[in-house]
Amino acid sequence: PSNPLSDHQTSSIDITVCYLLPPDTSSIDITPKGKRPPVLVDGVTLNGPTLDIREAESFLREAMPIVMEEAVWKATDVKEKVCEWRSPEQLKDLLDLELREGGEAHPQILQRCRDAIRYSVKTGHPLFFNQLYAGMDPYSLVGRFITEAINPSLYTYEVAPVFLLTEEAVLKKMIEIIGWQDGGDGIFSPGGSVSNMYAVNVARYHHCPDVKVLGLSALPRLVMFTSQECHYSVSKAAAFLGIGTNNVYVIPSDKRYAGYCWLLLVTGALPFMVNATAGTTVLGAFDPLEEIADICERHNLWMHVDACWGGGALMSKKHRYLLQGIHRANSVAWNPHKMLMAGLQCCAFMVRDKTNLLQRCHSAQASYLFQQDKFYDVSYDTGDKSIQCSRKPDAFKFWLMWKAIGTKGLEERVDRALAMARYLAEEIKKRDGFRLVMEPEYTNVCFWYIPPSLRDTADGPEFWRKVHAVAPVVKERMMKEGSMMVGYQPHGDKANFFRQIIISPQVSREDMDFLLDQIHSLGMDL
Amino acid sequence: PSNPLSDHQTSSIDITVCYLLPPDTSSIDITPKGKRPPVLVDGVTLNGPTLDIREAESFLREAMPIVMEEAVWKATDVKEKVCEWRSPEQLKDLLDLELREGGEAHPQILQRCRDAIRYSVKTGHPLFFNQLYAGMDPYSLVGRFITEAINPSLYTYEVAPVFLLTEEAVLKKMIEIIGWQDGGDGIFSPGGSVSNMYAVNVARYHHCPDVKVLGLSALPRLVMFTSQECHYSVSKAAAFLGIGTNNVYVIPSDKRYAGYCWLLLVTGALPFMVNATAGTTVLGAFDPLEEIADICERHNLWMHVDACWGGGALMSKKHRYLLQGIHRANSVAWNPHKMLMAGLQCCAFMVRDKTNLLQRCHSAQASYLFQQDKFYDVSYDTGDKSIQCSRKPDAFKFWLMWKAIGTKGLEERVDRALAMARYLAEEIKKRDGFRLVMEPEYTNVCFWYIPPSLRDTADGPEFWRKVHAVAPVVKERMMKEGSMMVGYQPHGDKANFFRQIIISPQVSREDMDFLLDQIHSLGMDL
Repeated sequence: PSNPLSDHQTSSIDITVCYLLPPDTSSIDITPKGKRPPVLVDGVTLNGPTLDIREAESFLREAMPIVMEEAVWKATDVKEKVCEWRSPEQLKDLLDLELREGGEAHPQILQRCRDAIRYSVKTGHPLFFNQLYAGMDPYSLVGRFITEAINPSLYTYEVAPVFLLTEEAVLKKMIEIIGWQDGGDGIFSPGGSVSNMYAVNVARYHHCPDVKVLGLSALPRLVMFTSQECHYSVSKAAAFLGIGTNNVYVIPSDKRYAGYCWLLLVTGALPFMVNATAGTTVLGAFDPLEEIADICERHNLWMHVDACWGGGALMSKKHRYLLQGIHRANSVAWNPHKMLMAGLQCCAFMVRDKTNLLQRCHSAQASYLFQQDKFYDVSYDTGDKSIQCSRKPDAFKFWLMWKAIGTKGLEERVDRALAMARYLAEEIKKRDGFRLVMEPEYTNVCFWYIPPSLRDTADGPEFWRKVHAVAPVVKERMMKEGSMMVGYQPHGDKANFFRQIIISPQVSREDMDFLLDQIHSLGMDL
Repeated sequence: PSNPLSDHQTSSIDITVCYLLPPDTSSIDITPKGKRPPVLVDGVTLNGPTLDIREAESFLREAMPIVMEEAVWKATDVKEKVCEWRSPEQLKDLLDLELREGGEAHPQILQRCRDAIRYSVKTGHPLFFNQLYAGMDPYSLVGRFITEAINPSLYTYEVAPVFLLTEEAVLKKMIEIIGWQDGGDGIFSPGGSVSNMYAVNVARYHHCPDVKVLGLSALPRLVMFTSQECHYSVSKAAAFLGIGTNNVYVIPSDKRYAGYCWLLLVTGALPFMVNATAGTTVLGAFDPLEEIADICERHNLWMHVDACWGGGALMSKKHRYLLQGIHRANSVAWNPHKMLMAGLQCCAFMVRDKTNLLQRCHSAQASYLFQQDKFYDVSYDTGDKSIQCSRKPDAFKFWLMWKAIGTKGLEERVDRALAMARYLAEEIKKRDGFRLVMEPEYTNVCFWYIPPSLRDTADGPEFWRKVHAVAPVVKERMMKEGSMMVGYQPHGDKANFFRQIIISPQVSREDMDFLLDQIHSLGMDL
């Protein structure tokens, strides 16, 4: 794969450009296109490309069937394993990670592809329930293959026309679905955490536009509010943006926001935003958005809704009541890569503002990129709204999938996932040894498994201490078997419980039954 | 593509789980696997998957040849066009962007794939010279297809074992190449801009660990230094992280840092870092790193090197002198997606620190993700070092490419790109009507084209005003023809000039000659 010509160079000639043959000689023509003589610069022969396109083609022709067979079909086949567990130490040996001076031949690289796939967790497998994303959508996948091949970056219309326009179209539709009648603005970001950072930044800029130039040291102490069950990225955002985690006031679920605001106003700090969560990470719970909107309006606070996970419910006429009031938010983060299966990453950050707030807050007007003397309407060069420079075309795969299955198809998937969660919750209630943590609001079904040995023990610290130890062992056995993957965690004062997440239309009711059977069979001896 | 069963539901039954057939009946078995009777919940029939895997397979089998033919082979063929220009208004019509209630059939979606590819700029084309990335590497591309199919997220070893280990291996090698003998730490981030933000955050945390919890309002005013030619993300970082753009002191290229540090120490602000640039965006210039390191050591300033673009030269024994002194930096940002062609995005942020600074500075210890009672060594769960939660496996494609062509292959590509830039610069000097802006230090070749009508005009404001108008017109014609893409920009007090970037081994010396011929033929009438 490396340049064969350069091996023949024994000396280098600095700076001087050296014609190996007189310019008028055309008898040796190694590159038919230009009919120019070979040139040697700095010890490197420059004529013709050194990437052998035939070799590249033969590699791709051999590699693609492996990708399709192993990473697409087998990886989504319910009869195959979800994971092939190896410890870090074992896997390091198996993968031969070291990067060396010389390259490797194609058969060896193809084997590396097979190994990488084999030992990877199959997140598109119907029995992968471990995170807030899952499944494989074929339209999105093709969209992603296209963008990886095209390799665009979304700074300007000039280099990414199709991908900027599809991003605009997707944002417009998502904004419509949120219910912002007058429209809004938005940008795709590399993750919900970054979207929440955007929210903090636009909220404080909205309150104190001087912050961009003068920084926080010129302002009073800023404080923000969030509900207790918020994602940890709210705290990461506060640290990263210089607010400080102590200035994030966490409101217990049963308290009112109003009192806190008042308290802060009289103690000299400046409250500027409330982060509400629509679809919490562990429990899948929804903050009361109408009530929070009332408080934000009354106290002039920016209302941000982290709907990264719960935003999917907006697609469903039946379930969108969960986010009742979201149209009153000032900003919304919503990740279609989660419930809507657009593939990582696909994360929209949207603002109701129509005064070009994103641009004003984030722009740096790089003259080499955002030239104003271009020959087209440069309002399509939206890259300066972003905190990034290079930016991946994350909206396109979602656009293509949406085109293929329609709004109705997305709605049916969401409705089915919620119905499936309901089914699982009812099954849990029926079965001995399973106990729901709470009635699911969304598709997080949280439950304990109580092995037979503990079923006669009375509730109490000793019981919960033992229950706490069950999930880690069941999870270990599950992964070593490779049969499925489901997450567990402690939560507040609650002992470790399983969190089953349902998303994909590949999942069937039989899989729910299998899940419970499997947990029982893995943990019944504990 | 949507669930055909749900069309037949006319009423919904809330919460109640309803068996359509008695549980013991097995005469109608729509899902052979589980042999369980159909279940209706909330109006949705739950048995069996609703994603038709055969339909998905047939779509992928039809789509993949289009992707390979149009987005890989034609898109990298020098005989094809680089772009098929359409104005935003025209393209909106052509793409039919609107997202509707109903989905579309496969032939229509396949046509949308073809259109998206057709109207996209081919950044892997040998004549795409418009940005600081270019080219197509077949190994990286296969790596990206694998990761898109597997769809991992890099929080924990449990869900991304292969991708966390390959990231670790790549970082280890890059750190070795930087020259940090005792090792270091690092993380891949979604872009060089984000890497520079990481630098600002760890630098200030290193100086003032209280900032994470208390925020900037509890600290003295922090100020940072950067050289004049730095990337605009330094200013975006200062705004986003609450430092304020006014607190970024820009040092003109001919001034010393020392005086400024002293000045600031006596005026009450706290200087905490210097951002040095190795490979500036427009000119490809390198700051004197040894000199900056001396100043940073003397004044206890964090030294960050933005080597996003210039880092590639570290692979070359011949050219790494450009970054002499980088081993003295406290942190380095280096994007292998640029000069090393790993594909967007591939951006490493690395620190020399060995005290777990990244973790301490960024962690939020989410208990649902980073459980401490797991059955493996949780030090491999590196996700909490990141400001992101979901994170793409950006290192894997680079690892696979590196395995395939070896360190030597990467070195040869870099050496050849620099030799090619040298050739182009010498050609420019030889040709009438072309004028170099400066001798290239790297592979940015910056030059003016002077049309014949201006060649007898004396240098002066009138001359430069006219020259300034040339590049935008040539660029417009170039794009409308689709023959190639090269960037232009004004810079400081300099009139618009072309910036030719050379990266890919697909590029030949003939392409350099074509570039100059083409610019002349497009601009000779101006």
